[in-house]
Amino acid sequence: METRFVDWLLSRIPADPRLEIAGGDDAAVLRPPPQRRTVVTVDMLTEGVDFLFGPDCLPGAVGHKSLAVSLSDLAAMAARPEAAFVAVALPRTRAEEIGRGLFDGLERLARDQGVVIAGGDTNTWDGPLVISVTAIGSVAPGAAWRRDGAQVGDLLVVTGPCGGSLLGRHLAVRPRCLESLDIAGRFRVNAAIDISDGLSLDLTRLMKASRTQGVVDLQHIPVHPDAVRQSSQDGLSPLDHALSDGEDFELLLAMPAADAQGLVINPPAGLRPIVIGEVVAGNGLVARDQTGLLRPLEPKGWLHDGTG
Amino acid sequence: METRFVDWLLSRIPADPRLEIAGGDDAAVLRPPPQRRTVVTVDMLTEGVDFLFGPDCLPGAVGHKSLAVSLSDLAAMAARPEAAFVAVALPRTRAEEIGRGLFDGLERLARDQGVVIAGGDTNTWDGPLVISVTAIGSVAPGAAWRRDGAQVGDLLVVTGPCGGSLLGRHLAVRPRCLESLDIAGRFRVNAAIDISDGLSLDLTRLMKASRTQGVVDLQHIPVHPDAVRQSSQDGLSPLDHALSDGEDFELLLAMPAADAQGLVINPPAGLRPIVIGEVVAGNGLVARDQTGLLRPLEPKGWLHDGTG
Repeated sequence: METRFVDWLLSRIPADPRLEIAGGDDAAVLRPPPQRRTVVTVDMLTEGVDFLFGPDCLPGAVGHKSLAVSLSDLAAMAARPEAAFVAVALPRTRAEEIGRGLFDGLERLARDQGVVIAGGDTNTWDGPLVISVTAIGSVAPGAAWRRDGAQVGDLLVVTGPCGGSLLGRHLAVRPRCLESLDIAGRFRVNAAIDISDGLSLDLTRLMKASRTQGVVDLQHIPVHPDAVRQSSQDGLSPLDHALSDGEDFELLLAMPAADAQGLVINPPAGLRPIVIGEVVAGNGLVARDQTGLLRPLEPKGWLHDGTG
Repeated sequence: METRFVDWLLSRIPADPRLEIAGGDDAAVLRPPPQRRTVVTVDMLTEGVDFLFGPDCLPGAVGHKSLAVSLSDLAAMAARPEAAFVAVALPRTRAEEIGRGLFDGLERLARDQGVVIAGGDTNTWDGPLVISVTAIGSVAPGAAWRRDGAQVGDLLVVTGPCGGSLLGRHLAVRPRCLESLDIAGRFRVNAAIDISDGLSLDLTRLMKASRTQGVVDLQHIPVHPDAVRQSSQDGLSPLDHALSDGEDFELLLAMPAADAQGLVINPPAGLRPIVIGEVVAGNGLVARDQTGLLRPLEPKGWLHDGTG
């Protein structure tokens, strides 16, 4: 398999002006854009934890998701995606079928997002599928959105509805790369994170990094229709799903009030950003109800050790 | 585990002028050196295939190896190592113990080689250990050694003895980064590869990429003492071990004759490069014995699908 599959993979690395040498199973040589910083993120997905193969989850969907989650990390820093590298451990008995499906899904998303898949490493073994994608982006010096920049007085903005992603959106992830570049070009963003592990958990991380407190107006949380559907199945409220499900891959932004309002009025195409609260002095999260009453908001979400 | 271990990991990312933002589980922002290309390589190692835990293979040794093999890919392109990113799927029951051991081994080698570990992704699951290291280096435009540049008339040079790596050297990999930069600074190298899968197999790849034939003087192949020891255990000849074992991580270079001879006479400190043959028109490999007689040389080595 090694020879055929790796050769097939290499043969699919497109000519691209960003590539001096394509990688295949070797190192690739990239031409970094001048006067830019290099942004690097790596995400590993494992069968049985991040996905379960089935009729609704074929290898192409896993390939899509594995690149999409890394691109979402670039979006959360307002970095422009440039290149991706893919390392896989393929289950031996279905290695070629899974490998080709994976790369079909990867390549489709890479094309859509203007990313070149520039190399990787293919392995087979007796275990389940493991895929690790390294995404490389670029950003102007000092311009990357950070987690630790939220300011007291900022408004908190989420770029779309949350909750119920397990009903399918957790695979069909749409990384907000173009939208993030558009926002960065027009508005000031003091801090940002993508919602991978749950709105309340990721917002807690943003506030912790910024040493600030997030006040969340629960009635303004945009609840996805999937959260409502899932609520009818498990009895947990749609709001709870929106706050804790994760894998929404919307962006959570802390922005000066004028910028937040400008973004809501004039959003990137296809995006419905909503102000869900504000940043105050303190730490952690509090929920504010319609009467203005405050109560602590316990962060809930997906912890990667499975205890969450 | 997620919080404690990831925080621990993040806390160990050193301040480094190459880092604008350290990664942790997020994206990192690197300051690429001006006027240089970016070299990227990723290697994934899986428990049971690339290593077996035991008294001689503790997590620290696996951490070392996982970074070393990626750095060896940089060495094979004469790229200067800059940063590394580490994605792991840790076996749930021993996640923290293995994770800390891994990172101890990674960090020690990173320090030795001047590489900053700038970020990563930590996961736990019910499967065996999987670790994927992305190494990032830099090189002057057009200066990366390639696989496809060998010229008829070049001499073939190997930087050290081969064979028997399974007796321990396959873990204690010494990537030839400094040596490769020294060689690149003083000599012309037309093509290069590191010996990961076996001298004869990797040389075949070099010749295939260059559309040339390699003539190998079998009596000049530097046979490692480990190959002799292993031969006494399994009856395969020491030379066969040297030609096919792999995981030597020495460099295999195609160089103009004068440069090859200069390198042999005046090698980097600690290196014993040896001329093992020459490049001629044709394809594949032939072995030349002491009488000058030629016969085909079948490439043997490690194919990642386990059929090799």
